[in-house]
Amino acid sequence: MSGGGGFTDLGFARPDVGRESRQGLPEVVYGPGKAPGQIVAIVGSLLEANTGPVLATRLAPQKADEVSAQLPGGSYDEVARVLSWRHARSRGFRVVVASAGTSDGPVAAEAVAVATAIGLSARLLADVGVAGIHRLLAETDDLAAADALICVAGMDGALPSVVGGLVDCPVIAVPTSVGYGAALDGITPMLAMLTSCAAGVVVVNIDSGFGAAMAAHRIATVRERR
Amino acid sequence: MSGGGGFTDLGFARPDVGRESRQGLPEVVYGPGKAPGQIVAIVGSLLEANTGPVLATRLAPQKADEVSAQLPGGSYDEVARVLSWRHARSRGFRVVVASAGTSDGPVAAEAVAVATAIGLSARLLADVGVAGIHRLLAETDDLAAADALICVAGMDGALPSVVGGLVDCPVIAVPTSVGYGAALDGITPMLAMLTSCAAGVVVVNIDSGFGAAMAAHRIATVRERR
Amino acid sequence: MSGGGGFTDLGFARPDVGRESRQGLPEVVYGPGKAPGQIVAIVGSLLEANTGPVLATRLAPQKADEVSAQLPGGSYDEVARVLSWRHARSRGFRVVVASAGTSDGPVAAEAVAVATAIGLSARLLADVGVAGIHRLLAETDDLAAADALICVAGMDGALPSVVGGLVDCPVIAVPTSVGYGAALDGITPMLAMLTSCAAGVVVVNIDSGFGAAMAAHRIATVRERR
Amino acid sequence: MSGGGGFTDLGFARPDVGRESRQGLPEVVYGPGKAPGQIVAIVGSLLEANTGPVLATRLAPQKADEVSAQLPGGSYDEVARVLSWRHARSRGFRVVVASAGTSDGPVAAEAVAVATAIGLSARLLADVGVAGIHRLLAETDDLAAADALICVAGMDGALPSVVGGLVDCPVIAVPTSVGYGAALDGITPMLAMLTSCAAGVVVVNIDSGFGAAMAAHRIATVRERR
Amino acid sequence: MSGGGGFTDLGFARPDVGRESRQGLPEVVYGPGKAPGQIVAIVGSLLEANTGPVLATRLAPQKADEVSAQLPGGSYDEVARVLSWRHARSRGFRVVVASAGTSDGPVAAEAVAVATAIGLSARLLADVGVAGIHRLLAETDDLAAADALICVAGMDGALPSVVGGLVDCPVIAVPTSVGYGAALDGITPMLAMLTSCAAGVVVVNIDSGFGAAMAAHRIATVRERR
Amino acid sequence: MSGGGGFTDLGFARPDVGRESRQGLPEVVYGPGKAPGQIVAIVGSLLEANTGPVLATRLAPQKADEVSAQLPGGSYDEVARVLSWRHARSRGFRVVVASAGTSDGPVAAEAVAVATAIGLSARLLADVGVAGIHRLLAETDDLAAADALICVAGMDGALPSVVGGLVDCPVIAVPTSVGYGAALDGITPMLAMLTSCAAGVVVVNIDSGFGAAMAAHRIATVRERR
Amino acid sequence: MSGGGGFTDLGFARPDVGRESRQGLPEVVYGPGKAPGQIVAIVGSLLEANTGPVLATRLAPQKADEVSAQLPGGSYDEVARVLSWRHARSRGFRVVVASAGTSDGPVAAEAVAVATAIGLSARLLADVGVAGIHRLLAETDDLAAADALICVAGMDGALPSVVGGLVDCPVIAVPTSVGYGAALDGITPMLAMLTSCAAGVVVVNIDSGFGAAMAAHRIATVRERR
Amino acid sequence: MSGGGGFTDLGFARPDVGRESRQGLPEVVYGPGKAPGQIVAIVGSLLEANTGPVLATRLAPQKADEVSAQLPGGSYDEVARVLSWRHARSRGFRVVVASAGTSDGPVAAEAVAVATAIGLSARLLADVGVAGIHRLLAETDDLAAADALICVAGMDGALPSVVGGLVDCPVIAVPTSVGYGAALDGITPMLAMLTSCAAGVVVVNIDSGFGAAMAAHRIATVRERR
Repeated sequence: MSGGGGFTDLGFARPDVGRESRQGLPEVVYGPGKAPGQIVAIVGSLLEANTGPVLATRLAPQKADEVSAQLPGGSYDEVARVLSWRHARSRGFRVVVASAGTSDGPVAAEAVAVATAIGLSARLLADVGVAGIHRLLAETDDLAAADALICVAGMDGALPSVVGGLVDCPVIAVPTSVGYGAALDGITPMLAMLTSCAAGVVVVNIDSGFGAAMAAHRIATVRERR
Repeated sequence: MSGGGGFTDLGFARPDVGRESRQGLPEVVYGPGKAPGQIVAIVGSLLEANTGPVLATRLAPQKADEVSAQLPGGSYDEVARVLSWRHARSRGFRVVVASAGTSDGPVAAEAVAVATAIGLSARLLADVGVAGIHRLLAETDDLAAADALICVAGMDGALPSVVGGLVDCPVIAVPTSVGYGAALDGITPMLAMLTSCAAGVVVVNIDSGFGAAMAAHRIATVRERR
Repeated sequence: MSGGGGFTDLGFARPDVGRESRQGLPEVVYGPGKAPGQIVAIVGSLLEANTGPVLATRLAPQKADEVSAQLPGGSYDEVARVLSWRHARSRGFRVVVASAGTSDGPVAAEAVAVATAIGLSARLLADVGVAGIHRLLAETDDLAAADALICVAGMDGALPSVVGGLVDCPVIAVPTSVGYGAALDGITPMLAMLTSCAAGVVVVNIDSGFGAAMAAHRIATVRERR
Repeated sequence: MSGGGGFTDLGFARPDVGRESRQGLPEVVYGPGKAPGQIVAIVGSLLEANTGPVLATRLAPQKADEVSAQLPGGSYDEVARVLSWRHARSRGFRVVVASAGTSDGPVAAEAVAVATAIGLSARLLADVGVAGIHRLLAETDDLAAADALICVAGMDGALPSVVGGLVDCPVIAVPTSVGYGAALDGITPMLAMLTSCAAGVVVVNIDSGFGAAMAAHRIATVRERR
Repeated sequence: MSGGGGFTDLGFARPDVGRESRQGLPEVVYGPGKAPGQIVAIVGSLLEANTGPVLATRLAPQKADEVSAQLPGGSYDEVARVLSWRHARSRGFRVVVASAGTSDGPVAAEAVAVATAIGLSARLLADVGVAGIHRLLAETDDLAAADALICVAGMDGALPSVVGGLVDCPVIAVPTSVGYGAALDGITPMLAMLTSCAAGVVVVNIDSGFGAAMAAHRIATVRERR
Repeated sequence: MSGGGGFTDLGFARPDVGRESRQGLPEVVYGPGKAPGQIVAIVGSLLEANTGPVLATRLAPQKADEVSAQLPGGSYDEVARVLSWRHARSRGFRVVVASAGTSDGPVAAEAVAVATAIGLSARLLADVGVAGIHRLLAETDDLAAADALICVAGMDGALPSVVGGLVDCPVIAVPTSVGYGAALDGITPMLAMLTSCAAGVVVVNIDSGFGAAMAAHRIATVRERR
Repeated sequence: MSGGGGFTDLGFARPDVGRESRQGLPEVVYGPGKAPGQIVAIVGSLLEANTGPVLATRLAPQKADEVSAQLPGGSYDEVARVLSWRHARSRGFRVVVASAGTSDGPVAAEAVAVATAIGLSARLLADVGVAGIHRLLAETDDLAAADALICVAGMDGALPSVVGGLVDCPVIAVPTSVGYGAALDGITPMLAMLTSCAAGVVVVNIDSGFGAAMAAHRIATVRERR
Repeated sequence: MSGGGGFTDLGFARPDVGRESRQGLPEVVYGPGKAPGQIVAIVGSLLEANTGPVLATRLAPQKADEVSAQLPGGSYDEVARVLSWRHARSRGFRVVVASAGTSDGPVAAEAVAVATAIGLSARLLADVGVAGIHRLLAETDDLAAADALICVAGMDGALPSVVGGLVDCPVIAVPTSVGYGAALDGITPMLAMLTSCAAGVVVVNIDSGFGAAMAAHRIATVRERR
């Protein structure tokens, strides 16, 4: 049943089917706390009312299987836990996703998977944490060529501070919940990134590779305007 | 005395005079905790070694006077507490700075002052907090025309969540320390903005109008590349 | 064994059987940490000593089954996890329960279930979060007709700030523990709601749909006095 | 200059002059961080565009004097620090403001002053903290006669838990920042009140006598509907 | 192997066998994180070197069985999860353990079990939380007769504030981790109890029925001196 | 005007004049946030209605002078900031107040002053922090002779853990707000004391020498019963 | 594939194979969040490119078995959960690892295992917590003979404050997450150790026996320089 | 008056005059909260009973003057706020104190002043924060030559993570309280440093240049043993 003016009323949810026309991309479905049937209904309504890429994030393999069985044609990234349909064409916007450590992998993978699905060119630069700074400095040219950098790091969250001083493009910092003790499940790198000594670094929620990719989408959108 | 490779060694400080060539803008001087003489020395070395705009932020009027007396030619914005020299030419990048309440004024002013000095076109939209949502909705056209939105809000920090759903450009959220009690000196809006239900909203440090303007600078820079 | 003056002494518990006469409703039993046998004993004493509706909240299906087997006649709401006996007649007090997202569903359901059991007319308005503000604005008439609004939201907790500015009736905000990272298991929306920029919004404990419904009961009670 | 549709655009502020028609009361001006001239301009626009009571809160005596000099006819409550114009007629709604200790006085006074100005009948019951429970029990009749109770308490924040069990009307808890050490500037009573063992107690921000009075206004409004 | 001067060196542990002579009671063994074999070794050395009661706390039933199989003669309290050997004779010191709610039961039981094992006369007064204050007031005589009161409460932690005003004996407050949301796993009642408005209330760690009983032991010891 | 049943209604305060008969000591007046005139009124009513010692704490010298001028006969301790009238006779209960460092002096002095005024024999043992453990061990005999120990310490709050293992009497720990950084204004020693590895140590609020003395009063009271 | 200049690019990781030459020890592999195959690849590249000891920490027995099956020659410490290859020869540097309680055992074991593998002489002194101070004082000679002390303690974290006052060598404090309630999963001892009243005590992350051993390695390295 | 066994009993303080023989250095006096007369008495007793350097830290200029007037021969460092007597001879141990920003100057100066007074060779490397990483890399040789590195940084606290990967000597991290908002008065860099991705970095209290210098003293001491 239609709720009028840009959304569909499913009773338990109101998918914002007008978002594609307002913001260039359909709503993205966050998986946790939703039953497979609910995800199918929401994704289905988005696929029907919109024409662009549709994504569901944070889906465990089994849940992804159940959804895929009813909504075929999607592709599932097991590391990123992202299920997506109708990938966008390349928009010529280069995103480099740099991660500080191997354990940050799933969050970095989510950023890459979402960015790729929505048409950004995403490259992963894994395990370039600042305690072995030569690993990062060896990639200076690649960093300089990026249109946006997504820095994924847990614990001390120091990576975006170094990167932010090396490049002139937007730097989106993603704190992760890896580590233990004083890392406080990601609160510590989140706070550290917010107080980064590199000017103009911006921050998204802990573990939100998705949020970082969507921020890159907004930047790509405004660049496309010109 | 030169420290080689892009910085000047003043003994108590090492101004990063190479930043302009690396990042398109000289280092910006943070005023608190520095004596007027120290600010004069740092700003002086930046004015000498660089050609672009030079700024000092968070300067009380008297300190600004002392610095200006020795480094004439700057302009001082009393609300923003920003002292700046050699403003950049307009770069054709429209920033709208929306503030939730009147008390957020100084932080919004810092964002406007920094953005203006570095060549961005900044417009202030004051007091459009979501408790009177019609005030914000009356500005929909202006919001849609912006290349980047800076949302300044304290307390519940709800403004960027609403704005983020209305526009497709980058939304940079700045939590402020106004309010009392459960606002926790800005921690509450900071956390709320990081968990914004609008996808792709990014956050900078509490009260950092400066940081938001620098993030806009990075976005403008990458747009200029195209 | 009777404890005299309004309570029953069961040894491990002292059900407040006098509450119905003092406050218009019997005590409500909180399920977690109580064995089925304990719940049966407490509910039994309330059913016996009182005449109004009796409720047990936060009961998993299996525990609800065990209790129901010994105390038939109750009805169980699986989403809300509420087991209730002897629903009150309608008191002509309209409560709208608005939830920001689909994941807030169980908390909203608890509010609806408790409100309904105690005689309030409760309507659910699901998934009207502020990032798609048009979904909320489409319901303005329904919001205005409510006698009390219960706003259920996690993450940024922004919903009651917008709603609070649209209506003149009491707005009871319920933060939820959905989300991750900076949402801090509901602390973030709780703090945001307490500092809501909408005047007169009140807040209950995280995930406490029950508490919100009981607050509505108190408001209905005082309205019935007139 | 009018901003259309219910607000006035003063440049630095957008007074929500449509609030009176939407919510029955004009916007209330929060004093801190605003210059006397700004307060005069905002209050002036509200007095002009609305007909009901206009209030400014948290005004130190000197600031109140400066504002009063330009906007005569107001009355100033020095304990509550509230300056108000055009008090509403009595609406026949009885609010009892109970405070736990003498030090909670200014917050209780703010609740009384705001409630009185907007037409509620407010009575102060000072220093009835639970460590001398007989002081509270001596007032049982008065408590029972209230249409809403505002409980103001710092430190352990225990007062609303006891009161909430004695009365059937709405109980609005206001934590205060009195005390030291583990009271955490009011965070402790705020948390304690949110987890009150009395069902249906609701909470507003720390020290917000204003917020509690506005919550009472919303309750009075819905009662007047009947 | 003996470690000399009052302790036994077991390699992985150094049981303080001199504590009985210094403090009147042997060391009590905290179970979590210790293998059954380790508990057997420690308890064995205490039983051998001392003559008074020996206790192990926080033992799940199966672990208690394994220990009991090798060290017969102990008694196990399943609710309190305490395993104890050689109970002390009654010392004529009356402890009342009052709990606010049924869910606080296991912590109250630990206090009773430990107190009983070390010779104090402990009586449980369950479910006398302040939201139904008449339940507590009905026990005034029993409260007044106690030599020490242990108040066990979670959530708002209000019970010791009321009790502390009714009696003149020591009041030992035990916060519990029951409840959810703003109860913060017991931090909230802990803070509330530390800022109790009743003078001279003292606090032990969250859920530490053991600690409260040991505090009562110290008080009983000094009374026995006279 | 009398409020009946054990308190006096002064309008702004309700002194609990019945406390002396219930608890053996009149109410103690906490100075901050009260005007001199208010203190005079409250103390006056206590002196009139009671016969025992009356105290006001946390009074700066000038405020103490103003109060003393109207209520002569009191004695003022400038370090402790305690003003007191009608000291009790010695009750033969020995309290040792041990402080970890010189900076803890004012809090220790408050404990000594209050204890002395209410008839306890209090001895100060200053600057016996555990980083120079020989200073504490040199006092073993004095510690063993005490009927109760009050341990005052900031920063790591380690003193009561060592003392608690040396003596068998009650140990009351008082965290102080001295130190900086990670001491968190006393939160750190407060938490450390609550998790003391010495069994049966109890804790009062940060800086509350008063609370510790009152806890000692309760212990002395129960000992006097025998 | 080689990444040039001191690291190997495995795609998902960049082992810092140059660390051995820069810092005297190869990189140590942190196990959690890495698949056995990933650990095998990283350890393999380190064994191949370096000559010194190689370690993987925090490995559960089964994971250790899987890794060992492909990389034989390692030794596994089940308490410490450390798997190591090619232990270094003794460097004549004596480390004493003192733990406060039996529950701190695994963390102390990790410190011993890492220290031993990298050539330090490590001795464990278990269960010498300060509540039985005689246990620690009995070891004064051993403490004095150490070249570095690692103090492992949870809860009140008091051990390094006492030890720090007894010895003149470096004291490295390791807070542990044992205990419950106010221990806050190790935050409390961490804060207490950072504010230790013993001068020059240093702190590593919660539960990081590894970090403490590596700090000892740095100290041993600088001593070997002389 | 002598307290026997290594301390002097001044009544209000017990200077640990035995520390010099136990730990190689007299006690250092922390100035805040002590009256000038108290400092004079404590320092006087240390100068008399010991032969090594005596220091008082955190003294404002005027207090330093008052103390110096009575205890001549000391030297005062106004930036570091350290007053010291009888500097030790050089011990041939090189400490490099690296600070991230100009605002960290006073803390770095305290580290240098204390280190110098106790015989360490301290060199300051100011303003080498990681956002301009070339400034730090230009000093690689100096860093490598140090026997210990003290890294002073606020905000993101990233400096020791980079430095820790470049050098093999001990790295002592000092978080500072500079910055604002999410820097949380130094808590953020403190947490970030404790979770540093560089192995073996150790941390002292916020702003404690003193603590870092004393840690270096302990390292120098153990190196001198060889």
